[in-house]
Amino acid sequence: MSEPLARTTIHEFTVTFGDCDPAGIVFYPNFSRWMDASSEHFFRTCGLPPWREMAKTRGLVGTPLLEIHTQFHQSATYGETLQIHTHVKEWRRRVFIQHHRVMRGTDLLCEGSETRIFCIKDPQNPDRIKSIEVPEDILAMCR
Amino acid sequence: MSEPLARTTIHEFTVTFGDCDPAGIVFYPNFSRWMDASSEHFFRTCGLPPWREMAKTRGLVGTPLLEIHTQFHQSATYGETLQIHTHVKEWRRRVFIQHHRVMRGTDLLCEGSETRIFCIKDPQNPDRIKSIEVPEDILAMCR
Amino acid sequence: MSEPLARTTIHEFTVTFGDCDPAGIVFYPNFSRWMDASSEHFFRTCGLPPWREMAKTRGLVGTPLLEIHTQFHQSATYGETLQIHTHVKEWRRRVFIQHHRVMRGTDLLCEGSETRIFCIKDPQNPDRIKSIEVPEDILAMCR
Amino acid sequence: MSEPLARTTIHEFTVTFGDCDPAGIVFYPNFSRWMDASSEHFFRTCGLPPWREMAKTRGLVGTPLLEIHTQFHQSATYGETLQIHTHVKEWRRRVFIQHHRVMRGTDLLCEGSETRIFCIKDPQNPDRIKSIEVPEDILAMCR
Repeated sequence: MSEPLARTTIHEFTVTFGDCDPAGIVFYPNFSRWMDASSEHFFRTCGLPPWREMAKTRGLVGTPLLEIHTQFHQSATYGETLQIHTHVKEWRRRVFIQHHRVMRGTDLLCEGSETRIFCIKDPQNPDRIKSIEVPEDILAMCR
Repeated sequence: MSEPLARTTIHEFTVTFGDCDPAGIVFYPNFSRWMDASSEHFFRTCGLPPWREMAKTRGLVGTPLLEIHTQFHQSATYGETLQIHTHVKEWRRRVFIQHHRVMRGTDLLCEGSETRIFCIKDPQNPDRIKSIEVPEDILAMCR
Repeated sequence: MSEPLARTTIHEFTVTFGDCDPAGIVFYPNFSRWMDASSEHFFRTCGLPPWREMAKTRGLVGTPLLEIHTQFHQSATYGETLQIHTHVKEWRRRVFIQHHRVMRGTDLLCEGSETRIFCIKDPQNPDRIKSIEVPEDILAMCR
Repeated sequence: MSEPLARTTIHEFTVTFGDCDPAGIVFYPNFSRWMDASSEHFFRTCGLPPWREMAKTRGLVGTPLLEIHTQFHQSATYGETLQIHTHVKEWRRRVFIQHHRVMRGTDLLCEGSETRIFCIKDPQNPDRIKSIEVPEDILAMCR
């Protein structure tokens, strides 16, 4: 992996009993849950305020997903401490691709790409959201 | 149980593999999750619109909890179909107590009381919520 | 979609308040949770007993994932009833690809492929699992 | 609170976006999930191995719940760091009561009691579990 000079954050946590299924291993949707937490952690570490603040100041409601693609290499179980290494692999005009590697120390357990967009409340219809271009100032903070 | 003449709704669902823990039985916070779903199902069955509608028409954001008290009698596992019988045990001026019995056919698995309030967005501070008296019209629909 | 003659099952459920996030839409890892439930529902509909039975009779512990790939087309919110249409797109010797389309009536909300294997407890080490070829009798029941 | 000389552990974590509901606050069953994680953390901190180890060495499968009782004083939202203070309030012959206080710094958000038992696999029927007296050696480690 000749990966990134890109800014990378690390989010650490411990797997709990309730995260695991009757086979004794992590129930896999929890990996998506943790990747989302790690995406949130990435933006906070870059200095962005929580979405609820940005909803008020500029209408931003978050970074919904267009697509995910995850590969599972090894299982994990409760009591284990894992680290998610997160960076943005690609910034496009309206879309960015965030990449997560879930590690147990030096073992790669699982890795996934998330294609996300920035969304605001639709000014025409407050019940809907609409995507916008990646904001320049956010790009500057997170690259 | 010489229980209720009170209006009772029944919410049925099937336990999934992912709802269970490494002991092979339902991870208990899922019972709270299902009771909350059954509370929501109760109000919809009584004819109330979703909270997001009532947030717009009258500022109501839902029925947050003050207190829960749950007893676990028997465990459940995946593939089993359960029914939650839900009714309101007591309507007070600002508070109501909703009661849930989780059944597997005629077996009582678990039962719980939830003390809830009706809340609106605080007109002084849109980030806060504040409790109101139980609205008369809602009481009339749900009793 | 000139899709399948392959056996397809439909799993229906209603989105709850607690399935949604502060943006008011389904928190996306729940789609993975529902797809897993739908995979389980598929095998039960084909006549397979629960994994805990097959663990006893033949050591089978389930169908862990190697890979998932999901595309999100439209969001959903609480109170909506969704249907997941599930079929197996491809049976290989050691691997099968299960495909899920999450519909709200005729609207396609999201679709995903899961690459899965059949696993047994490792006879050498009961703490580990190992993949086996797709069992002939299961293939016959599910095709 | 002239509480405890009893051994108390503190489990810290950060609330995520996905832990919150459309009202923008923690979906309350997550508090039960975190209390369970904190119970597990308590026993590990006292020096007990994970349940899967003790299942092998002495048949112990965990500490299922008989009853929970939780009071909610204040809500929490994503981005906030919380601490759960956990101790055992009472050890009886077959039952113990674990108490959790969920704090945000010096603010008490919620507190709950859990009545739990120690269980082993039923030697007569490996599909069932049965409660045992609180083991002397575990009591000695955790008191």
